[in-house]
Amino acid sequence: MPTPTRKLHPFALTDVTIDDPFWTPRQEANRAVSIPHILAMCRQTGRVDAFKLDWRPGDPNPPHIFWDSDVAKWIEAAAYSLATRPDKRLEAEVDEIIDLIVAAQQTEGYLNIHFTVVEPEKRWANLRDWHELYCAGHLIEAAVAYWQATGKRALLDAVCRYADYIGSVFGRGKGKKRGFPGHEELELALVKLFRATGEQRYLKLSKFFVDERGRKPHYYDKEAKERGDDPKTWWARDYSYNQSHVPVREQDEALGHSVRAMYLYSGMADVAAETGDEELRTACKRLWASAVERKMYVTGGVGSAHQGEKFTADYDLPNESAYAETCAAIGLVYFAHRMLQLEADGKYADVLEQALYNGVLSGVGVRGDRFFYVNPLASAGGHHRQEFFGCACCPPNLARLIAELGSYVYATSGNALYVNLYVGGEGETEVAGWPMTLHQETCYPWEGAVKLTVELGQPTKFDVRLRLPGWCRAFSLEVNDEPVEPRLTKGYASLKREWQDGDVVELCLDMPVERIVANPAVVEDAGKVALQRGPLVYCLEQCDHSGDVRGLALPDDAELTARFDTNLLGGATVIETTGLAPAATGWKGSLYRPLSETSAKPVRIKAIPYCLWDNRAPGAMAVWLPRG
Amino acid sequence: MPTPTRKLHPFALTDVTIDDPFWTPRQEANRAVSIPHILAMCRQTGRVDAFKLDWRPGDPNPPHIFWDSDVAKWIEAAAYSLATRPDKRLEAEVDEIIDLIVAAQQTEGYLNIHFTVVEPEKRWANLRDWHELYCAGHLIEAAVAYWQATGKRALLDAVCRYADYIGSVFGRGKGKKRGFPGHEELELALVKLFRATGEQRYLKLSKFFVDERGRKPHYYDKEAKERGDDPKTWWARDYSYNQSHVPVREQDEALGHSVRAMYLYSGMADVAAETGDEELRTACKRLWASAVERKMYVTGGVGSAHQGEKFTADYDLPNESAYAETCAAIGLVYFAHRMLQLEADGKYADVLEQALYNGVLSGVGVRGDRFFYVNPLASAGGHHRQEFFGCACCPPNLARLIAELGSYVYATSGNALYVNLYVGGEGETEVAGWPMTLHQETCYPWEGAVKLTVELGQPTKFDVRLRLPGWCRAFSLEVNDEPVEPRLTKGYASLKREWQDGDVVELCLDMPVERIVANPAVVEDAGKVALQRGPLVYCLEQCDHSGDVRGLALPDDAELTARFDTNLLGGATVIETTGLAPAATGWKGSLYRPLSETSAKPVRIKAIPYCLWDNRAPGAMAVWLPRG
Repeated sequence: MPTPTRKLHPFALTDVTIDDPFWTPRQEANRAVSIPHILAMCRQTGRVDAFKLDWRPGDPNPPHIFWDSDVAKWIEAAAYSLATRPDKRLEAEVDEIIDLIVAAQQTEGYLNIHFTVVEPEKRWANLRDWHELYCAGHLIEAAVAYWQATGKRALLDAVCRYADYIGSVFGRGKGKKRGFPGHEELELALVKLFRATGEQRYLKLSKFFVDERGRKPHYYDKEAKERGDDPKTWWARDYSYNQSHVPVREQDEALGHSVRAMYLYSGMADVAAETGDEELRTACKRLWASAVERKMYVTGGVGSAHQGEKFTADYDLPNESAYAETCAAIGLVYFAHRMLQLEADGKYADVLEQALYNGVLSGVGVRGDRFFYVNPLASAGGHHRQEFFGCACCPPNLARLIAELGSYVYATSGNALYVNLYVGGEGETEVAGWPMTLHQETCYPWEGAVKLTVELGQPTKFDVRLRLPGWCRAFSLEVNDEPVEPRLTKGYASLKREWQDGDVVELCLDMPVERIVANPAVVEDAGKVALQRGPLVYCLEQCDHSGDVRGLALPDDAELTARFDTNLLGGATVIETTGLAPAATGWKGSLYRPLSETSAKPVRIKAIPYCLWDNRAPGAMAVWLPRG
Repeated sequence: MPTPTRKLHPFALTDVTIDDPFWTPRQEANRAVSIPHILAMCRQTGRVDAFKLDWRPGDPNPPHIFWDSDVAKWIEAAAYSLATRPDKRLEAEVDEIIDLIVAAQQTEGYLNIHFTVVEPEKRWANLRDWHELYCAGHLIEAAVAYWQATGKRALLDAVCRYADYIGSVFGRGKGKKRGFPGHEELELALVKLFRATGEQRYLKLSKFFVDERGRKPHYYDKEAKERGDDPKTWWARDYSYNQSHVPVREQDEALGHSVRAMYLYSGMADVAAETGDEELRTACKRLWASAVERKMYVTGGVGSAHQGEKFTADYDLPNESAYAETCAAIGLVYFAHRMLQLEADGKYADVLEQALYNGVLSGVGVRGDRFFYVNPLASAGGHHRQEFFGCACCPPNLARLIAELGSYVYATSGNALYVNLYVGGEGETEVAGWPMTLHQETCYPWEGAVKLTVELGQPTKFDVRLRLPGWCRAFSLEVNDEPVEPRLTKGYASLKREWQDGDVVELCLDMPVERIVANPAVVEDAGKVALQRGPLVYCLEQCDHSGDVRGLALPDDAELTARFDTNLLGGATVIETTGLAPAATGWKGSLYRPLSETSAKPVRIKAIPYCLWDNRAPGAMAVWLPRG
């Protein structure tokens, strides 16, 4: 294998503590409400007990092909939570479930509920549509996370055996199948397993799956014929649905099922980072540009279409009918984090932040027990969070990301220390052989001031790189109360100096309210603005307004005021102004009237962060407002 | 039967001549191009020869369940053309096809290609999904039209026998089926047959179908079970798809397949007019209000959804994804014309005109040989007219309506003469026993001036009622160069006087360019305006502009100038102004930017009538423009 080209190395989750007015309550709700709630839902629906393998033909409620993944993602979430906040009861609960899972493993290493008890004869028969390899990937991620959190190896050993078995079935060797996952996920999981174990064979297997994808003759054609199916009658029609229409190195457009795409691209970036594969890295950058520069909502949501949960054409970003699945925004965070590690460029962290604070966080209610699967940018009032879903990918995906937040805050690159996200707490690392702790205090994203204090055994020269978010157009920076002029490099303010214990860095990011416009090619947003302050995109909710919020106009000269509202859902900055509401009177019997016969009246507008919508009285919602 | 309550009686088509700068070229293209083209398409696809009944099992190209209707509508179009412009060759061609049709009639009177040669065992087995009764309706309409145009009875006699046979199969009598058409059409056709023959039994049969619709136990449930099908597994799921979810008298919302709905409501209005049925009339008014006041595009298009070609929720009127089938706009013209006859209220003629000049006329290219099935109000550039369709309902529907235009211009009501549409030419009638001719000269819809000259045997007192279109906000009226003050009644200017031969009425309708806004509940149009002048809705086509027309903004203070452009597709009034185009530069790598960093530059805007779009270079199109 060539030399790795991973530029940034995130801090281990166990080296980061979060103590932050914005995120601590979210992590607490995740720990105290979401994680128990999701486990209860998994239990209630039979997902946990299914690992007992006692379902028999004729029984009701056959284990579904993706149940393993839901429980695995829950274990991963619990593991991240345990990594930073030990909890004996939770750990005992995970151990018990892991015992079930390990006991469900077959002699040869195979480990999948559905294809062990429901359709054992169909093992590996339909990689295209079924989720065996996807479930395997989630079990591996869970195992690595739990081992890192607790040092316990039972699940890690099991998934190594499973991965070895998978490696004995799939590959280029004689008698092996040249298949690849219909729903990507295993690729990135195998790189995690490689990093956890140091075993090159897992990286090689991941690279095999990445590179085999989309080759001709197409494996899914062959596989369908072996099942006696006509590949031409496939419901999704086109292999771009699962990104296997051409080999991944030839792909240049984000296509198909958006979660699958994000997981694949994440796996590709991981393989590129670990192998130094330039061609793969270039493909990742092309796919990034396609997804982010032409197909992403301002909330960081991706995948516009309900039909097939897919990406559509460039600039096709309808608001009310947006799909923007929570898992796809989470997948974009994963992809962005990997591109950041590959390129050390702040533009990737910008998108990571944009998705995290908007399209991801909107996925879970503030209490932690209600979830969005779909995240539209406008609503007539009928879209609300639910306690769970038959296809329950989003809730545990949210839980694991929120619990794992610490991993996204800091990274090292040789002698440089990167601060990627502004989240209060501390991060511990070693610099030049000496332990170093970076304390962070901030009210971000409500305020742009960040105070960093260095705790250091002895004076040491190194480089601290603070991200200057793409949304920020002016900032000030001081070290020990003295203004400094940092070197600016790829979206970071670089401070290279000999640091002393107790040094204080104060960064102040200007955070005015901005009117955001979309590229003119996004016709759905023509003549409209969205409000943004810092990383947060705002929206109007019906309960704060009279007249359908989707019709309220915001004149270009209306003054926008940000105010911290302590009563709003635990405290949040709102944006207030005066807009125009079209008069609702005079319309009796007519749908259309001359503009000159209608009028508009000034109305108070109160915008709240998009991530907080649908936590109060149900009603309409809009992100994009006519400039009126 | 109670007393008829039909207030207006349209002039017979043969009593109206059209000689008009706007409509004559359209009728000429219809006669010289569309009618021969549609026949050629019907022949080429086997639709005409199918009446020979020589298809045999195993042969390719089995006659489809709606083929009869395509040929029937073509005959109807040819008949209307012959009524006003004799053409021996065309008449001979029709006679030959009618011979085939008459010869295809079965002994008992049954007359349907598919269920005679392809699936004879399935006659009347699935009224819900198949089109037997729909095809019967179109054969009846064709027969009545051809008899009225030529006096020839062959097809009329055949359809009377068919209608009598249908009456022997369906009805409330012992042993009869209590079914009704899955695709409505026969209801209105039977009223035409009643009016042509004076036979009450056809009116009664129509009323039976109208009233049987949606009763419990539901006929389609019973019928499905008789076929061995589970009615619950029906693909369309809900009987509102074909307006049979509840009895029609209980319906208050325009629902389901929009063409079916319009044909049903037309038939209901006909039955109400002929029977004086108040309850039915009230139901028609409720359904009118639902369709027109809450579910109609500004072009007169109805039925927003591609899926099921259906009406959706109130105010759900997306522009680019609009379905707005040409046949649905035509159906709205039919419904409006019948409501006008029932109510003598100009508001119905307003909608008739709005649909006719916009959403209907857009359905056919100016040359006459290309057709839209779907009429969106915005396009990315990929939507174009086609020469024909597998489901070919729209082309012959357009041909028959354009050929029949004369019937919509004038009507009588007792001693009053109504001018409903402003179309040059003349209309002949009798007033108090004396022949009377009304000559009309106008450049409508390009200009609002209309000159009417009365030709009369002797001075006679009667009432001339000139429609004051809903779009018109000021007008002047003179009789023999003297200003007059008419009585205003239900959208008409009424001139009651003793008319002399040679009297001249000059009506001048103010026709400024108007910015139109949609009801605030139509969120798709929030912050946008459409341009309208007279009855014509305008649009921007890409070939007249630089920068995607869907992003061009029209400031409220931009001056709008109307200019007749003699070079535009035979001459048309265009609207010119200066708008704002968002700068396309500076977007590299970003989808979203602060408004303050973007700019807009003035651009010339040239709007053309919506009905003329897609006749030049293909490209994007927009009706609604941001107010910018």
